[in-house]
Amino acid sequence: MPESATTIAIAPDQPAPRLLEKAVVGAGARVGELAEADALIWLGKPGDFPKSLPSTVRWVQLPAAGIEDFFTAGVFAAHPDVEFTSAAGAFSHSVAEHALMLLLAGVRYLPEQLRATSWQQREFFPHVGSLRGKTVTIVGAGGIGRALIPMVAPLGAHVIAVNRSGRKVAGAGIPADVETVPADQLGRVWSHTDHVVVAAPATAQTRHLIGADELARLKPSSWVINIARGSLIDTDALVDALTAGTIGGAGLDVTDPEPLPDGHPLWTLPNAIITPHDSNPPQLRLAAFADHVGANVSRFVAGEHLAAIVEPQRGY
Amino acid sequence: MPESATTIAIAPDQPAPRLLEKAVVGAGARVGELAEADALIWLGKPGDFPKSLPSTVRWVQLPAAGIEDFFTAGVFAAHPDVEFTSAAGAFSHSVAEHALMLLLAGVRYLPEQLRATSWQQREFFPHVGSLRGKTVTIVGAGGIGRALIPMVAPLGAHVIAVNRSGRKVAGAGIPADVETVPADQLGRVWSHTDHVVVAAPATAQTRHLIGADELARLKPSSWVINIARGSLIDTDALVDALTAGTIGGAGLDVTDPEPLPDGHPLWTLPNAIITPHDSNPPQLRLAAFADHVGANVSRFVAGEHLAAIVEPQRGY
Repeated sequence: MPESATTIAIAPDQPAPRLLEKAVVGAGARVGELAEADALIWLGKPGDFPKSLPSTVRWVQLPAAGIEDFFTAGVFAAHPDVEFTSAAGAFSHSVAEHALMLLLAGVRYLPEQLRATSWQQREFFPHVGSLRGKTVTIVGAGGIGRALIPMVAPLGAHVIAVNRSGRKVAGAGIPADVETVPADQLGRVWSHTDHVVVAAPATAQTRHLIGADELARLKPSSWVINIARGSLIDTDALVDALTAGTIGGAGLDVTDPEPLPDGHPLWTLPNAIITPHDSNPPQLRLAAFADHVGANVSRFVAGEHLAAIVEPQRGY
Repeated sequence: MPESATTIAIAPDQPAPRLLEKAVVGAGARVGELAEADALIWLGKPGDFPKSLPSTVRWVQLPAAGIEDFFTAGVFAAHPDVEFTSAAGAFSHSVAEHALMLLLAGVRYLPEQLRATSWQQREFFPHVGSLRGKTVTIVGAGGIGRALIPMVAPLGAHVIAVNRSGRKVAGAGIPADVETVPADQLGRVWSHTDHVVVAAPATAQTRHLIGADELARLKPSSWVINIARGSLIDTDALVDALTAGTIGGAGLDVTDPEPLPDGHPLWTLPNAIITPHDSNPPQLRLAAFADHVGANVSRFVAGEHLAAIVEPQRGY
């Protein structure tokens, strides 16, 4: 077999992480020096990015999903003829899995069961629920929301995906019968929602997206999961609903304020699960990034459209 | 549209549960009196089963998955010309969902996180794992194991299914690349197993299937889940492994002894999750049974092979 003609440089970390080298080779390219490379996988900071690149380099893969700092550093402006891709979507899987964990733990009454030190089968029976036949509304159909849908659907849940456009959410593993609702019609989903997962970006429009009114329209068995940003939920209204028991509970990987201060009522409410924004821990990131790189190298070798292309003129 | 000719009686509960009536009608039949029925959905005890049935009744759906008591009561012998179906498989979904919940809660370090009353992101980061890219060995590929596979596979886990025959496990939602291993070769799976779910029946052969030797071959990050019967795991060996930290943890809906007595070390080990055999709580059973009935009525109306047919000559 002839050696692949496509050469990918990995910089500045030397030696390059083995998982990344494996991903490149597994995708049909070879790892080589930047001077002879067709593409660059950049693992460093924006300020350290090379001022000039060899003219052979046509593509640069960046290590982060949010690339504001590369804009600020002028990286895109300095290399107008190079295609840049971010890591957008690469880290969605772990966060979506965390959301599913929080939702299942809540629905199946795990917090109370974990506190028990005696066999309370009859006491717990009425509180153990299931996602089967329930409607899970996922607010935000970006990378995390889209990763979560194929995890929730096999549990027999009906999914309502809420996105800005209301354009039908589709993609690998997403069942055709997923209902999509535009964000400006969010109000009409509550009456047939059992559980909510908040997965939308934090913007002026999404601040307190879940407030007292929305919580009041949920059910005493409803769980509210937030793996996005704390500001999307009105914390005081949530604490009131949890205290009154008008909803089933809340599973929060993000809080407002964050970090959640010692002594905050959310720490001790029996129907609140708090994880300290650890749904995408560092040790899982390299493997997820390597998967993303492997997929993009395969596409690059095949001359296909790359994933997570940066569009500098649009600002992301 | 002409009224369906197929009539199903529901007895002895009067009025019949609405969910069941809906399932029958939704499947294209009508609910009627036993005297004019083509089939009977029996909700009562074995001892109360009618001594004789109208000759029009060709099929009887029983309400339980385990039907030993109907054998003892002579129900099958008294009606040799009637086809009986049990509820085998109907209740697998809830138990499989519970297994997934226990596994995810363990892998993502929920027990320690739930105990926290302060923000410990850096402390928890290294302990939050993911099922992505991990190998989950499911011992027992009956109804529960087969229901669990399509729940675990979308999380990016590789599944090894262990069954008696080693015949390839296939079915709705089960990915084609699921590896099947016969039970007599169970020993060779441990070296590439990350997590184990015990879902096999309790027999003389499966007693202490997971003992000190098997636990010793797992990893410090491995979780052991049991939603089958307590006797399949050697409890003392498990407590030793949990105490020494040679495995990650155990999620147990069933224990040996059961109920787990007050003061047992499993109640307080930080890496053990105990739920008191509540993975299939009563209030979820009617809905699950109604789904099973609906599917079987559809088949009956269409003249197709029914699910969970009782084979009296085989004894189950």
